[in-house]
Amino acid sequence: MAEYKSIETVKKEILDALCAAGADRNNALLVAESLAFADARGTRSHGLNMLDAYLERIRQGGINTGAKTSVVRETGSSVVMDCNGGFGQTGVQDLMDRLLEKVKSQSIVCGSVRNINHCGALAFYTRRAAVKGYVSLLFANANPTVAPFGSMEAVLGTNPFSVGLPFGNRPIVLDMATSAVAKAKIYQAAKEGKKIDPSWALDAGGSPTDDPAKAINGVLTAMAGPKGYGIAVAVEILAGVLSGGGITGEVNSVHKNPQAGMNSGAFGILIDIHAFMPEEEYSTRIAKLIDEIKSAKPQPGQKIYLPGEIEDNNYDAALKSGIEY
Amino acid sequence: MAEYKSIETVKKEILDALCAAGADRNNALLVAESLAFADARGTRSHGLNMLDAYLERIRQGGINTGAKTSVVRETGSSVVMDCNGGFGQTGVQDLMDRLLEKVKSQSIVCGSVRNINHCGALAFYTRRAAVKGYVSLLFANANPTVAPFGSMEAVLGTNPFSVGLPFGNRPIVLDMATSAVAKAKIYQAAKEGKKIDPSWALDAGGSPTDDPAKAINGVLTAMAGPKGYGIAVAVEILAGVLSGGGITGEVNSVHKNPQAGMNSGAFGILIDIHAFMPEEEYSTRIAKLIDEIKSAKPQPGQKIYLPGEIEDNNYDAALKSGIEY
Repeated sequence: MAEYKSIETVKKEILDALCAAGADRNNALLVAESLAFADARGTRSHGLNMLDAYLERIRQGGINTGAKTSVVRETGSSVVMDCNGGFGQTGVQDLMDRLLEKVKSQSIVCGSVRNINHCGALAFYTRRAAVKGYVSLLFANANPTVAPFGSMEAVLGTNPFSVGLPFGNRPIVLDMATSAVAKAKIYQAAKEGKKIDPSWALDAGGSPTDDPAKAINGVLTAMAGPKGYGIAVAVEILAGVLSGGGITGEVNSVHKNPQAGMNSGAFGILIDIHAFMPEEEYSTRIAKLIDEIKSAKPQPGQKIYLPGEIEDNNYDAALKSGIEY
Repeated sequence: MAEYKSIETVKKEILDALCAAGADRNNALLVAESLAFADARGTRSHGLNMLDAYLERIRQGGINTGAKTSVVRETGSSVVMDCNGGFGQTGVQDLMDRLLEKVKSQSIVCGSVRNINHCGALAFYTRRAAVKGYVSLLFANANPTVAPFGSMEAVLGTNPFSVGLPFGNRPIVLDMATSAVAKAKIYQAAKEGKKIDPSWALDAGGSPTDDPAKAINGVLTAMAGPKGYGIAVAVEILAGVLSGGGITGEVNSVHKNPQAGMNSGAFGILIDIHAFMPEEEYSTRIAKLIDEIKSAKPQPGQKIYLPGEIEDNNYDAALKSGIEY
């Protein structure tokens, strides 16, 4: 039966579970915020569903719960950080905090953090930076599950990226995997006995399949064929190659090898809109664009949402009525 | 009958035609290089096929052939430029040249150029920056042809973007429209009496259609549904809103209103890899990634190419045997 919990209750449960497992309280609080944020926004794949995997990694030593993020290399407009196997949330938040500090004296800054564990939904970080008024881009690599275009072997990760674009307290926020779909969606179809879109995966023989069981034994494809493949490669180079962290097979799944760090990486960019125009002018211009998009003629029975708007609406509803579990 | 012309011959023909129409010789040379580059790489939509539209715009006043790009606003790591209605190639090359200069003393720089006309293939610029050793990102907005997700009205442009990632003289280069396909592909299917993928376009009633004739009277969709829509919005904000240039309906098609400037914009970012690691380390790491991708098991009958590799191969073949027209 459906149960509703307030966002604060969910946070508290996650915080308590992580602290009981031995996590540093500040780190645990950040992780709890990240997972509750995802659930409240309806991104269940990155919410409470992840807690057991995190706890198992803590128990087995794969997450160094008290790790401090260190600065490896730094210039006026860039930073290279190492999370040292701590929570991914700690590493990426430390990176973004450092970039938020640096962008006060630069028009654009970038940086990477390596040796992170699962860092939750990327929108958690880009949205915060966008609310502070910065255009934010964030890329992360992941363990191999996706076949390069033309291949039937998992080499690339789901390699997600997120972009935050300032608009007051309701920024435009994209957050997407570069795979056609998350593997969870294929498991869901298998459970429900439904067919899948044949563009989502290849079977073990390398052919597109609409059978979820065959897809599970096969490999994920990139979104939009060669286009998504190209983006996944770019993400791997920014978050993996340039960060100095794990590349492709060096990155562990959050669900496997809990005794080892996941060894993935992230790469972030922040841009100060004031380098381009006064804030008022930006606000007027983006409001005009938003108005044009929202007032476009909808398809019969459809509604037009801005990127991230459905998730914001979910969050608002969760604030009022709690999150349904 | 097929005719082969050397890249240099094609350049010369374009240069002569542009100069005869009154274009400044330096600008004309750059435009000729851009169009010949696209044809040699097999991207015919951005090659010689564009020349007549350019000439018509010159004749009618839509391209100010002698315009100088001006700097509107500048900081140590950013620049805002105005192409003043000149060739898009001049504006974007001037932007990238300015960024290449600025990135010598910064780890990351960004900038925009507004009031440009059609600027050819974005890979022309990002590839050059990548060969010089910089990670390059370039975004451009375009006239409305694509429906926001959930809508049946053209509001967004094909809003392409390109990423260049250094690897010696064979950098990895992505260059893609954020629409599912180029409209040219739908016209081609109509001509050949073929059906189209129903994910490419909506008919006039807002329903997905596999009939190219109905698609032509309808509207293009974004690549990968809501994901490509999100990217198209981000491109519109970077290249349109932040550049201070035209947004959505303020941008003209290259094939319409030849008496007016196209009024589109571009936004570029350059990153110095030395801020992250020594060049040798980067080269070793990216070579490892490339090796893993290229040695992945291919689908039956398929071959694995890196992003931009097919285009580089086409260029090499054109250098040797000319471009087929």
